[in-house]
Amino acid sequence: MSLWGGRFLEPTDADLKALNDSISFDVRFYAEDIAGSIAYARAIQGAGLISAEESAQIIAGLEQIRAEFEEGFSPQPNDEDIHSAVERRLIELVGEPGRKLHTGRSRNDQVATDFRLWVMKALLQLDVLMDQLQRALLEQAEKHVNTIMPGYTHLQPAQPITAAHWLMSFFWMLTRDRERLRQSRQRTSVLPLGSGALAGTPFAIERQTLAAALGFARISENSLDSVSDRDFVAEALFVFALHNTHLSRLAEDVILYSNPLFGFITLNDRYSTGSSLMPQKRNADPMELARGKAGRLIGNLTGFLTTLKGLPSTYNKDLQEDKEALFDTVDNLTKLMPVVTAMMRTLRLNPDKMRAALGEDMLATDLADYLVNKGMPFREAHHVIGRIVTMASDDGVNLSQIPFTDLQDLSPLFQEDVAQVFNFVTSVGRRKAPGGTAPEAVTKQIAQAKAWLEGWG
Amino acid sequence: MSLWGGRFLEPTDADLKALNDSISFDVRFYAEDIAGSIAYARAIQGAGLISAEESAQIIAGLEQIRAEFEEGFSPQPNDEDIHSAVERRLIELVGEPGRKLHTGRSRNDQVATDFRLWVMKALLQLDVLMDQLQRALLEQAEKHVNTIMPGYTHLQPAQPITAAHWLMSFFWMLTRDRERLRQSRQRTSVLPLGSGALAGTPFAIERQTLAAALGFARISENSLDSVSDRDFVAEALFVFALHNTHLSRLAEDVILYSNPLFGFITLNDRYSTGSSLMPQKRNADPMELARGKAGRLIGNLTGFLTTLKGLPSTYNKDLQEDKEALFDTVDNLTKLMPVVTAMMRTLRLNPDKMRAALGEDMLATDLADYLVNKGMPFREAHHVIGRIVTMASDDGVNLSQIPFTDLQDLSPLFQEDVAQVFNFVTSVGRRKAPGGTAPEAVTKQIAQAKAWLEGWG
Amino acid sequence: MSLWGGRFLEPTDADLKALNDSISFDVRFYAEDIAGSIAYARAIQGAGLISAEESAQIIAGLEQIRAEFEEGFSPQPNDEDIHSAVERRLIELVGEPGRKLHTGRSRNDQVATDFRLWVMKALLQLDVLMDQLQRALLEQAEKHVNTIMPGYTHLQPAQPITAAHWLMSFFWMLTRDRERLRQSRQRTSVLPLGSGALAGTPFAIERQTLAAALGFARISENSLDSVSDRDFVAEALFVFALHNTHLSRLAEDVILYSNPLFGFITLNDRYSTGSSLMPQKRNADPMELARGKAGRLIGNLTGFLTTLKGLPSTYNKDLQEDKEALFDTVDNLTKLMPVVTAMMRTLRLNPDKMRAALGEDMLATDLADYLVNKGMPFREAHHVIGRIVTMASDDGVNLSQIPFTDLQDLSPLFQEDVAQVFNFVTSVGRRKAPGGTAPEAVTKQIAQAKAWLEGWG
Amino acid sequence: MSLWGGRFLEPTDADLKALNDSISFDVRFYAEDIAGSIAYARAIQGAGLISAEESAQIIAGLEQIRAEFEEGFSPQPNDEDIHSAVERRLIELVGEPGRKLHTGRSRNDQVATDFRLWVMKALLQLDVLMDQLQRALLEQAEKHVNTIMPGYTHLQPAQPITAAHWLMSFFWMLTRDRERLRQSRQRTSVLPLGSGALAGTPFAIERQTLAAALGFARISENSLDSVSDRDFVAEALFVFALHNTHLSRLAEDVILYSNPLFGFITLNDRYSTGSSLMPQKRNADPMELARGKAGRLIGNLTGFLTTLKGLPSTYNKDLQEDKEALFDTVDNLTKLMPVVTAMMRTLRLNPDKMRAALGEDMLATDLADYLVNKGMPFREAHHVIGRIVTMASDDGVNLSQIPFTDLQDLSPLFQEDVAQVFNFVTSVGRRKAPGGTAPEAVTKQIAQAKAWLEGWG
Repeated sequence: MSLWGGRFLEPTDADLKALNDSISFDVRFYAEDIAGSIAYARAIQGAGLISAEESAQIIAGLEQIRAEFEEGFSPQPNDEDIHSAVERRLIELVGEPGRKLHTGRSRNDQVATDFRLWVMKALLQLDVLMDQLQRALLEQAEKHVNTIMPGYTHLQPAQPITAAHWLMSFFWMLTRDRERLRQSRQRTSVLPLGSGALAGTPFAIERQTLAAALGFARISENSLDSVSDRDFVAEALFVFALHNTHLSRLAEDVILYSNPLFGFITLNDRYSTGSSLMPQKRNADPMELARGKAGRLIGNLTGFLTTLKGLPSTYNKDLQEDKEALFDTVDNLTKLMPVVTAMMRTLRLNPDKMRAALGEDMLATDLADYLVNKGMPFREAHHVIGRIVTMASDDGVNLSQIPFTDLQDLSPLFQEDVAQVFNFVTSVGRRKAPGGTAPEAVTKQIAQAKAWLEGWG
Repeated sequence: MSLWGGRFLEPTDADLKALNDSISFDVRFYAEDIAGSIAYARAIQGAGLISAEESAQIIAGLEQIRAEFEEGFSPQPNDEDIHSAVERRLIELVGEPGRKLHTGRSRNDQVATDFRLWVMKALLQLDVLMDQLQRALLEQAEKHVNTIMPGYTHLQPAQPITAAHWLMSFFWMLTRDRERLRQSRQRTSVLPLGSGALAGTPFAIERQTLAAALGFARISENSLDSVSDRDFVAEALFVFALHNTHLSRLAEDVILYSNPLFGFITLNDRYSTGSSLMPQKRNADPMELARGKAGRLIGNLTGFLTTLKGLPSTYNKDLQEDKEALFDTVDNLTKLMPVVTAMMRTLRLNPDKMRAALGEDMLATDLADYLVNKGMPFREAHHVIGRIVTMASDDGVNLSQIPFTDLQDLSPLFQEDVAQVFNFVTSVGRRKAPGGTAPEAVTKQIAQAKAWLEGWG
Repeated sequence: MSLWGGRFLEPTDADLKALNDSISFDVRFYAEDIAGSIAYARAIQGAGLISAEESAQIIAGLEQIRAEFEEGFSPQPNDEDIHSAVERRLIELVGEPGRKLHTGRSRNDQVATDFRLWVMKALLQLDVLMDQLQRALLEQAEKHVNTIMPGYTHLQPAQPITAAHWLMSFFWMLTRDRERLRQSRQRTSVLPLGSGALAGTPFAIERQTLAAALGFARISENSLDSVSDRDFVAEALFVFALHNTHLSRLAEDVILYSNPLFGFITLNDRYSTGSSLMPQKRNADPMELARGKAGRLIGNLTGFLTTLKGLPSTYNKDLQEDKEALFDTVDNLTKLMPVVTAMMRTLRLNPDKMRAALGEDMLATDLADYLVNKGMPFREAHHVIGRIVTMASDDGVNLSQIPFTDLQDLSPLFQEDVAQVFNFVTSVGRRKAPGGTAPEAVTKQIAQAKAWLEGWG
Repeated sequence: MSLWGGRFLEPTDADLKALNDSISFDVRFYAEDIAGSIAYARAIQGAGLISAEESAQIIAGLEQIRAEFEEGFSPQPNDEDIHSAVERRLIELVGEPGRKLHTGRSRNDQVATDFRLWVMKALLQLDVLMDQLQRALLEQAEKHVNTIMPGYTHLQPAQPITAAHWLMSFFWMLTRDRERLRQSRQRTSVLPLGSGALAGTPFAIERQTLAAALGFARISENSLDSVSDRDFVAEALFVFALHNTHLSRLAEDVILYSNPLFGFITLNDRYSTGSSLMPQKRNADPMELARGKAGRLIGNLTGFLTTLKGLPSTYNKDLQEDKEALFDTVDNLTKLMPVVTAMMRTLRLNPDKMRAALGEDMLATDLADYLVNKGMPFREAHHVIGRIVTMASDDGVNLSQIPFTDLQDLSPLFQEDVAQVFNFVTSVGRRKAPGGTAPEAVTKQIAQAKAWLEGWG
């Protein structure tokens, strides 16, 4: 019988029970529920509601239940949720004192407490996975500070860049993700327990002590808000959705660069898959999933925000939808990220293919800069180079093959030293201001990145 | 070993396999996969690729596998997906002929075929659940053709309406849902099989025959489109998300009307729940879940559309995200709808409470109409009534208590017969044009609804 | 003064008015509002509420207002919405009869009517734009029935296909879009007028006649539903969001194929743009916008479904959010689609580049099929070919360069005629079953497409 | 002619231009563009690219342009975007030096810089609006520390609470919003300028100095990331969407409590609206818009995240979709929030109505606590009270009307002092632990809130 059944004449409908119960998914935070109850037992002992002996019995019972869960204990069909499963089992184990544990507590503040504890843990775990991806990117980047590849905008060749610079660009996206994750975790670290169903507790529970015991940074300020505040869920869903969006951009590049016409990347055999009909294929499946799952995670965020919209104050059953959305997001990232990390660590860049994809038209900007350095206003230089590019294109030649006299016809500022512009190494080397693609700047960038990682810990 | 492993030197990473495999969820359409394979075996026999005997062996094997599944057969850890699980088992059972079944077929057209079959079935099942909810609404409506309740706009009392009219308003939302569902199902009924991996089949497969055998209305026209067309998934997700939005509106009304200040509705004990701390409560939990799950279903839709966005042509692994989104949507509705239906069928309307919530200010429009009928332009009548309402409000009296002389001061069109306006029964009775709230019109509406249901079957 | 102000003592706050008023965007359907009012004037004349002369005056007034709008008439700051602007102006123009027009009508049924009329028009207009894109695709396809290009799955080379087949794959997506659009339009074609504010009209309005006059297929069945039914908005938003998702997939292909490493496509100068810093670039900006705007349109859909979630019955002001969402969607597509169409019509395919990107490993499936045709079970053939592909890859040679004796070592089924497999023209030619990539099948596909277009009109 | 046109033979298509140009909406950050250009002029002077005199001319020109904009200067039809409009006008005004301003700069880093400046400003402005709403809530709360009202969970009466506690629950939601907003602003405060089109600048621009001049906290670390990082947009969209979700919950309560059956709230006439057909109505329109717009803002967030999904590295035109989404969000909140604030400040709570809605069954928990204080385990007390509630309900009496002897039959722990439980003032007074609803606790909560506001500034 469910814990609230005393009031009703007829038994609850079985379909309704199947719909309503959350035990199938909230069993997942049994450890948090038990930790919360142990701390709460001490708190109500402190408030004089149970004796030290009763408290000890309760705690021993809860610890046994935890051990049972670790060994595979399963809730019974009649348990509505993890809270009632644990309480039922506790009463079976310790009897009378078990019936006192819920004094002054409601499922509303209890579930909010459990879920926050779980989210705090999950955020930490995903932070570690992000750290590992950052280190994999860094590792590859260090090997390719001098590797030159085409840089694209609009997926059109734009300027030569260094491969390390490309790899590091994703590193910094992840610093923002981790910053958001940490701030979100701080905002999650607020104890709801002691809020009762909605109005607060009438017992002398030391909420600050309770918070400290459970590892919360502080207590909630308003019980009405506290039982229905799910900002921490929405925020975690956002942090992860945006992170996955970053992964989707990395994935898009890796998928493109693995296409043989690019050929910039060779995936490790362990991290690519074949085709049932086309034995020659080597697909970047996990990267496609990384891209596709961004949709799923954005959907989880959207869905939960929509669930929150327009709810009246305090707890409403709609909020039960919070858990599966976040579980799904966390589980998907937990499966996805180690594979993405391993792929990035084990893939091979092909400098020859990258070099082959460089074209002299990617030096047009350098040519414009050459004129600027000779004193021509940029807009004029831009226009002159536009004409040279057209000329080369019409004649089917490279920029460096345009006769020097033709260049001089267009501008007398062209001198013999213009030949030095047609060099990809020089081109990237010139962009050495902070944040630029020059090996010199990228070396500093990598050092900064390492310092960031060290400072983060 | 996976079916495509021949090409690779190193085994696939275990994490990647866990990420990539779909067997954990696509096992769900084993029946569709087997049906598709049986039909395909006949098709390749027709194309001369296997003998009649081989075909018979394959079909017998597949039927045995279906029986095994029905008795609880589980895929092995190495099976990537339901397709390879079935094929592996087939080869175990029938040997050589089993190795021929996949001739000219790809997982791309196979999975598209299986999933379409599953979706067609799911759509039918949910159509039945919608039908049941419609009938429950109709049943209640028939009891309350003459029950008068306040009609709200902006959640402010506006005009009296009949309770049957309120109930029937949801009936019609569901007719649109079911119309969309059926049209969506027709668009799903297109056979992809015979599209190969992307380029079509080189064998003389009779695709029309295959379509007919599997119950598809027609065959796809373009193999590239066909292997990656997931419009049918997006459309089903939309149909269900909008349907759930309708349920969320019904839920909002039921939740409001169950609040004791309204008291219009008493939920059946079997379909309401209590509170662990507040034994007196009778919550409409399933209705709150109906409202909350609208968010989830909107999220599933959004997420999948996002997954589709920007994909290159033909099959990409991102599409594997299609199944869980739709499974989640279908499963949630399948659990939710019978409960919503049962609640609507078993709830009790309280005509007394409804009557008590009617106020004479809800007849202000009738009063304006009275003046219109006496010849006053509507805008002028509107203004006059506005002043009367203010007068009544200032004096703290009902409209009918305004002295007749005061009315006449405002307009000589007021005659003794104005007293007849202050009657809620008359008020609803006047709105008898088609679609109106008058019992007369609602009776016709109910007849129309029944005809609709009959015509639908 | 606003039309409902009679009741209040204090003027409405200016900020609230700015927030509340919809005139800034609903002025857009002045033509629909006027058409609705003209029909309504006739209807209330039919109901005996105004005389034939009054009706004529009203209609003349409304026609003058339409003319004024066409010449640039602007609403006044005090007009809340298009309905009050038109009514105010009407009263200015024709006096007393103008004050009678709103008899038995509410803004709730009026705005629903206007908006449905507008949506029906917009759907038709976008249907034409889709038609034009389909014809552009068809036109290009007809030129490239025999052009061979690489077909990709997972963006990895898979099998040779014909360019016409690739182009046509998008044609069929649009047939589904247009089918959905038409069905959505049919569901929009339902007259709400005569529903009053919520309870129906007490006057003898002939709703069927009114529907016919305004071009609606039928009348709504329930006034409560009718004033707040926005399914037609949600459905239009969905139809367009999914359509834009299709455009985003086309865009992705065009962007990829315009990258010089692919080089399959040369965009027309009129439909590509350059870079301010990199004069050599030729960006497919409109295609990037087509891809990016899919996000926006998915957002518009999501947002509006979210707005609908959990609303109580009948009209709530939240519904005012319906218009801008759909206007934004329609406007973006209206600007986008002609450019996408023009790009597709004017781009040049480069058969040489396509041919250069074909590799013999794309014939591996054909090689497997060769063995199948010689009698080897497909799975075994698959495995044998996997070994050949590895061999070729290890030796850095093409498949056709593997010594014949080596092939025979792997299987005695290899005969001299295996040489004929290494031919891309033959390869595509074999896939001639309906829906396949063979020129023969594509020619039929194009004929089907033309028939579809003809049947659609 | 557009600035990049030099390369092309044919003029850009007019439709494409209309689609591509952003001037219609990015004109909005002319001030930021000019500020960025002034700082950049100094930076390139510092890098020796222009003389002090040229720099002065440029700056004077830009300041004149700013003045012109303030007086209503409009871009010309040919200006693509605000950047080219300003540059064109600058060249008109100052000639040659104007042509030098864009040296080493790209529209990619320029637009990112402008937009970040605009977002930083917008975040501050909305922070002020949130502050004002918090103060309005606080002001009302201070008046109602001792006002008792029903507290609801599941919209069912649960326990008595104080009205101040209810009001303050929204205050704390806004503290989280503002915290997120501030952190988001810090992450926005990163200078992209100096990143060029993608590869960094080859000129000796002092990026740190430039950042300081423009008020950025720091410079970006990687140019590739920097030109396409739109995390700041996504994050602002999220912060505002979640904020609006909070407003939607406040709105839901206000709408409910304004319904006459509740009657807890009377809206000020200035902040409510009427009905065209029902003169007696007083709608909370702005609150309905607050609720409805939550959908819109969630849609803007979803849409933009979807746009970001799967983009290849660096700048792609898709990113142009960033501005309108955020403009729409900011504009809607900017119009909405002052009205919501004014409504909350001016509404009147009706303590009598609140008191009338309290029922003794809301003291059931207190009754259970009474037994707990007498030594009965909570679960047993819960069960006993459940029976009492049933008894009272069956007999149609209040809890306090159950004969004392009947209570004692159920438990001998009931003593005469049980009568004291039936007091709403006592009930709320007992919940005085931190965060509870007791006037004592709420007084402390208000003090905390004031301290928070003070500390925030």
